Amino acid sequence: MTEEIYDVIVLGGGAGGVPAAIRAAQLGGKVAVIEGRDFGGQCMNRGCIPFGHMMVAANMLGALSLGKAMGLGFSGISKDYAALIKRQDGLIAFMREGVRGTLKKNRVEIIEGRAKITGKGKITVNGKTISCKNIILATGAQWLPPEFPGSDLKEVVNSDYLLDTETLPRRALLFGRSPWLIEIAQFLHRFGSRSILATQDTTILSDESKTITARLRKALKNEGIEIKTQAEIVAATENKDGLHVDLNSKNGRETLAVDNVITIERGAALKDLGLKSINLDEDSPYLTVNSSMETATEGVYAIGDLTGPQSRHYSHLASETGIIAAENAMGNDASINPRTSTRALFTQPEVACVGLTPKEAKSAGYDVVVGAAPLFMNPYGMIISENQGIVEVVGEKRYGEVLGIHIIGRDASEMAGQAVLAIQMEATIEELSRVPFPHPTLSESLAEAARDALGKPIYLP
Amino acid sequence: MTEEIYDVIVLGGGAGGVPAAIRAAQLGGKVAVIEGRDFGGQCMNRGCIPFGHMMVAANMLGALSLGKAMGLGFSGISKDYAALIKRQDGLIAFMREGVRGTLKKNRVEIIEGRAKITGKGKITVNGKTISCKNIILATGAQWLPPEFPGSDLKEVVNSDYLLDTETLPRRALLFGRSPWLIEIAQFLHRFGSRSILATQDTTILSDESKTITARLRKALKNEGIEIKTQAEIVAATENKDGLHVDLNSKNGRETLAVDNVITIERGAALKDLGLKSINLDEDSPYLTVNSSMETATEGVYAIGDLTGPQSRHYSHLASETGIIAAENAMGNDASINPRTSTRALFTQPEVACVGLTPKEAKSAGYDVVVGAAPLFMNPYGMIISENQGIVEVVGEKRYGEVLGIHIIGRDASEMAGQAVLAIQMEATIEELSRVPFPHPTLSESLAEAARDALGKPIYLP
Repeated sequence: MTEEIYDVIVLGGGAGGVPAAIRAAQLGGKVAVIEGRDFGGQCMNRGCIPFGHMMVAANMLGALSLGKAMGLGFSGISKDYAALIKRQDGLIAFMREGVRGTLKKNRVEIIEGRAKITGKGKITVNGKTISCKNIILATGAQWLPPEFPGSDLKEVVNSDYLLDTETLPRRALLFGRSPWLIEIAQFLHRFGSRSILATQDTTILSDESKTITARLRKALKNEGIEIKTQAEIVAATENKDGLHVDLNSKNGRETLAVDNVITIERGAALKDLGLKSINLDEDSPYLTVNSSMETATEGVYAIGDLTGPQSRHYSHLASETGIIAAENAMGNDASINPRTSTRALFTQPEVACVGLTPKEAKSAGYDVVVGAAPLFMNPYGMIISENQGIVEVVGEKRYGEVLGIHIIGRDASEMAGQAVLAIQMEATIEELSRVPFPHPTLSESLAEAARDALGKPIYLP
Repeated sequence: MTEEIYDVIVLGGGAGGVPAAIRAAQLGGKVAVIEGRDFGGQCMNRGCIPFGHMMVAANMLGALSLGKAMGLGFSGISKDYAALIKRQDGLIAFMREGVRGTLKKNRVEIIEGRAKITGKGKITVNGKTISCKNIILATGAQWLPPEFPGSDLKEVVNSDYLLDTETLPRRALLFGRSPWLIEIAQFLHRFGSRSILATQDTTILSDESKTITARLRKALKNEGIEIKTQAEIVAATENKDGLHVDLNSKNGRETLAVDNVITIERGAALKDLGLKSINLDEDSPYLTVNSSMETATEGVYAIGDLTGPQSRHYSHLASETGIIAAENAMGNDASINPRTSTRALFTQPEVACVGLTPKEAKSAGYDVVVGAAPLFMNPYGMIISENQGIVEVVGEKRYGEVLGIHIIGRDASEMAGQAVLAIQMEATIEELSRVPFPHPTLSESLAEAARDALGKPIYLP
């Protein structure tokens, strides 16, 4: 009896691995996916889904002020965090089962266990060695502990902590560069905690367009969320009234009394996979891949969080790269367009940035043209008082190509689909300016921002 | 002194006329816009804006049940309709001034008065005759009174009534085919009225995809809104306890006691414009135009509500056709794509339909393929319990062209921009299936519906 050889084995059943396995199977492959923990990965179990759920609740609280302006009164508002967590835990359990069902329906073999690669096309799992033609590495990211004196104290936690508690910290310092800390800061603030955001950079979201970051900062500050920039934790110590954190920032040195320091630092989960046996470096911060998601080793693909720094850890990118890897592993020819990935933030106002910022476009040598349409001039934006919102369109002058679209405001992440599609379809600014978006919607400001870039806005004062 | 001749005179300063005038002026024309009532027209003063505003309040009330499921409690909920109206009146006044400002900034001459065309290129207004090379007719629509015994009673009203009252009817019959009646029915229901929707057709939104109408009907009924189909009002009579309406419908004959019957019937405002002097028929239901928005008379364009039946009265269509007319009037060459106009409904769930329904596509002779992705299988849809939502993609098999996209669910009208853009850019179903929409968003279901149309959904069970 000859051993059956898999066409594709996917290591990791998260937001990247699952669609990779399904797509490979749909293309006729014999496919297995190996997961050592929870199907759905970080995104479903400890990331996008639970925190997305929490942000929906936070945004609902934030929308009450608009309701009041509209004549609606809400006299007794109560918040039951334990009930919120219970609902999302139920949702996640349901989704996890859904993932198994979809894998089975697509005839993907499910293997539960820790996989180790032992050589080209050889993987050991649960004491058995299996063979395959292609490996797709999709193990995602893992926690990196912060490094400051006192960072080993139990009050210094990561975002998982919030998913396992029934009581929120009354005072929290959210420290680091991760965009997700901004969501958590707003969530905690709206649930009654004192939230202090501190970043090492000169601004939150330092990689994004200034137009966006300035407005987000203003919105957060208006709401009462403290922001410290150019910040470093000198030390954290335990005291009777909680942690004392010595913080150096642009504002000077101060000591903050908080219940928790929350950090989010994650790096590619490359250890203990046996990467050395296939000539890949498990000590690098992440794996280098080409636009087909191929690593330096033939027949080995890597996707998602394994392939970039934390600023590129988005589950939609994981899914997209997973599908691309699967198609290439099955002999097709697919590649990624690096400009169509959205950096989304589910705060209120929401943020969604696609493609190049004005600064990046200039650095790349383009003759750049920028247009913008603030949402306080958009009819629907006026209705919902979306006063900090704006849509910014970045293009180049020669062919009019759209290079980037940056949105802050309600539903920015839904509107981002238009930006992604425009860039994917290589729309020109002129074409974008002519999209007859339905009225009254915030999306209309995409066309107006494009018209502004062309020097002929219709509705801007 | 020679008389100055305008390049373009626009009759009507509403959603169509304003962008038409501005665009013509931006192209170098000497332009005037003549408005006899309020700048902003039906849309801004008595349509999209006030009712959009009311629907935001209604949707907020509708979202409270999700909040409760998430552990948020709202013990005392009050609704102050007068405050709601006051806020929107203030907004509208602000917007109206904004329109004037934008017209002035673009050097469009504002003329307030009733215009009458007296011959080719001749318009009389405020006792003076002015000359122009091109006329853009943009007078919009006007109320058509309903016709049934008793329709002249004062309790038989149109939607304007709601904008001038401080007290809502406790019981209302919303009668007719207009989609906007559905919004009003939901608004009234959520503000505590008994809402009965009655349509002459076999379903509400009878022109739309069955997938959409079935789900909308279910959502409305689940909420407690009554729907009567194949309905005709036999007669309405005044009684001590309000109007008695004899209604024949699929359910048989019944007498309904209500405070108001609300109808929305509008037709092209063609009377008293002097259209006969330029050989156009003021007695037709609407003006026939070609894809350049030209009427049968050279140098005369017509746009917006003037050019189609009530089912095509959308202000984004008015704006789009206005811009096209202006460009053609100024010697450019622009034309309309009839498939990129959205039929949007700001109910909860929202509805947005773009392009051809499956039925229309089959009738047009296409070899049709349909894919769908229900939002209860979409991760964000699960979070927000968007259980009636779905995205339906209609395409044709030969080239894979996207022919229509139909969406019901939260933010459908924002997502519609993606549908419009996809059809405008002639995206194929395959291209739509590859858009890396951000996660977690409802928009992801557009790609999944496209994959379903291709027979390879990834996440559907």
